[in-house]
Amino acid sequence: MDVRAGVLAGDIRSVARGISWVENDDPRAAELIRGIYPSTGRAYIVGLTGSPGVGKSTLVSRMAALMATGKRKVGVLAVDPTSPFSGGAILGDRVRMFDVALSPNVYIRSMGTRGSLGGISRATRMASRVLDAAGFDWVLVETVGAGQSEVDVHDVAYTTVVVMAPGMGDEIQAMKAGIMEIGDVFVVNKADRDGADRTAAQVASIVQLSDEREWHPPVLKVSAELNQGIESIIEAIGQHKSFLEHSGKLAEAKASMARRDVLEILRARLSEDLQHELDQPVLQEKLDEVANRHSDPYTVVDTVFEQYWRKP
Amino acid sequence: MDVRAGVLAGDIRSVARGISWVENDDPRAAELIRGIYPSTGRAYIVGLTGSPGVGKSTLVSRMAALMATGKRKVGVLAVDPTSPFSGGAILGDRVRMFDVALSPNVYIRSMGTRGSLGGISRATRMASRVLDAAGFDWVLVETVGAGQSEVDVHDVAYTTVVVMAPGMGDEIQAMKAGIMEIGDVFVVNKADRDGADRTAAQVASIVQLSDEREWHPPVLKVSAELNQGIESIIEAIGQHKSFLEHSGKLAEAKASMARRDVLEILRARLSEDLQHELDQPVLQEKLDEVANRHSDPYTVVDTVFEQYWRKP
Repeated sequence: MDVRAGVLAGDIRSVARGISWVENDDPRAAELIRGIYPSTGRAYIVGLTGSPGVGKSTLVSRMAALMATGKRKVGVLAVDPTSPFSGGAILGDRVRMFDVALSPNVYIRSMGTRGSLGGISRATRMASRVLDAAGFDWVLVETVGAGQSEVDVHDVAYTTVVVMAPGMGDEIQAMKAGIMEIGDVFVVNKADRDGADRTAAQVASIVQLSDEREWHPPVLKVSAELNQGIESIIEAIGQHKSFLEHSGKLAEAKASMARRDVLEILRARLSEDLQHELDQPVLQEKLDEVANRHSDPYTVVDTVFEQYWRKP
Repeated sequence: MDVRAGVLAGDIRSVARGISWVENDDPRAAELIRGIYPSTGRAYIVGLTGSPGVGKSTLVSRMAALMATGKRKVGVLAVDPTSPFSGGAILGDRVRMFDVALSPNVYIRSMGTRGSLGGISRATRMASRVLDAAGFDWVLVETVGAGQSEVDVHDVAYTTVVVMAPGMGDEIQAMKAGIMEIGDVFVVNKADRDGADRTAAQVASIVQLSDEREWHPPVLKVSAELNQGIESIIEAIGQHKSFLEHSGKLAEAKASMARRDVLEILRARLSEDLQHELDQPVLQEKLDEVANRHSDPYTVVDTVFEQYWRKP
């Protein structure tokens, strides 16, 4: 079966192959995305973020299992390098420990690339489109804390779930501003442990400060390990989704998602072209000047910019 | 004192300020880098990479302390989100727990940015230049495994130290290809634990496979916690440095470092400009078509590319 047709038919081997293409920047990836893009925009993408050690991966597995009831299909993209789904890889490439399904309706995939700048971000974005076109109802993207990973979860998902663990009080206090902007749903995992109530109360008090917001992010206490409270997260995500739909914000978010797809691809393409241009003799001279410290990078950038970039 | 003069005089407050500028993409960063670039190219930059949990941060502290003997100045840039130097940040911003010196000659700094793509990579690169211009002899860059972080350590350092821990045998077997390309020095940390010999032997056997290489990466067993074997790492780094110097490869590496400085800044600048262009009405229409699935990102990129990019 050709990969495009396979993806559109929901064939999982085609999905896996397509995602490998976007990861490896295979030339066939562009053709695939062109071919499937009209069939995208239906999946609901949820981001999960939080520090290493808060238990995101267990939580994601539990959520995926629950979301996959009633024949719904769930795709998980693990971008977090500390995720067991990513195999705790050491070097250069990664061992895929969990590139397998928990149930026939759950597909879990770790994301990585061979290191081009912006590669993981673009690959994650395009892998979401592949899952979307393949009829996945939910896509869950697991990342480490915002600004720490190449993938800013807020940019790739409609609903962002921030996962915490008890005993992060000081950190939370120090981060008031960031918290309110990022999370749509807050989850205190490991709620059976000491300090869960205190952590939840702290987050709630900070979230309440911004009551001019139309959406009031819930703060949930759960235990992924004990499989307790997972349904409350799914419910909260559902409520946030309804809120976005009824306020017209989901349409906005989808438009802006498409816009960013364009930007990321444009960046990659320019970057390739730049790399090629920098090999030309005239630029090579300028680069040598920088290497010899007779010039500096900003001065060369000014030159290149004037030379190749055509203002409309 | 003005920041440029301060950096050039080795004033640590100016260094901290300059690095904050590059992190925040402050317009003053460009002016600073222009001003200090002629004074760079002297520091020796070492990258340390490895999975979370192998003990990189303790190792880095030990190495920095040892490297700082005899009035030598050591700067540490912690890019690893799981590093305690990065404060195990949860969200949006980070708590700097260790933005302090271990000794007057060691400066430790966690790296983060407010999330622009390529931001951490560019900031780390420019922070290295700031430390270099300030007279730091050594710069240590701590990252998680290659391809998992936005910063590819191989691109920002002259010598790459790959840190492992006992019991990673299966992973190592699975990654033969990657290992040989990346590491100049291999360190098995926690050598007092079971399995250290076996892990070291496995790495050594893989490294030996590529004996057409001119440099034969040593495999060292150390214990950062017990402060054992740290001097052997410094020695191995010194040997690799000599090898690069005598083979002419260090000069090459420095030239290529300058070239990449240009590329990263160029990318950032193009990216800003692109973002601006995408707001123009004519492109907005095309983006709407993508959002409505009447077009796809690759087709729009083709258009934009032809329109704004002037081939030489």
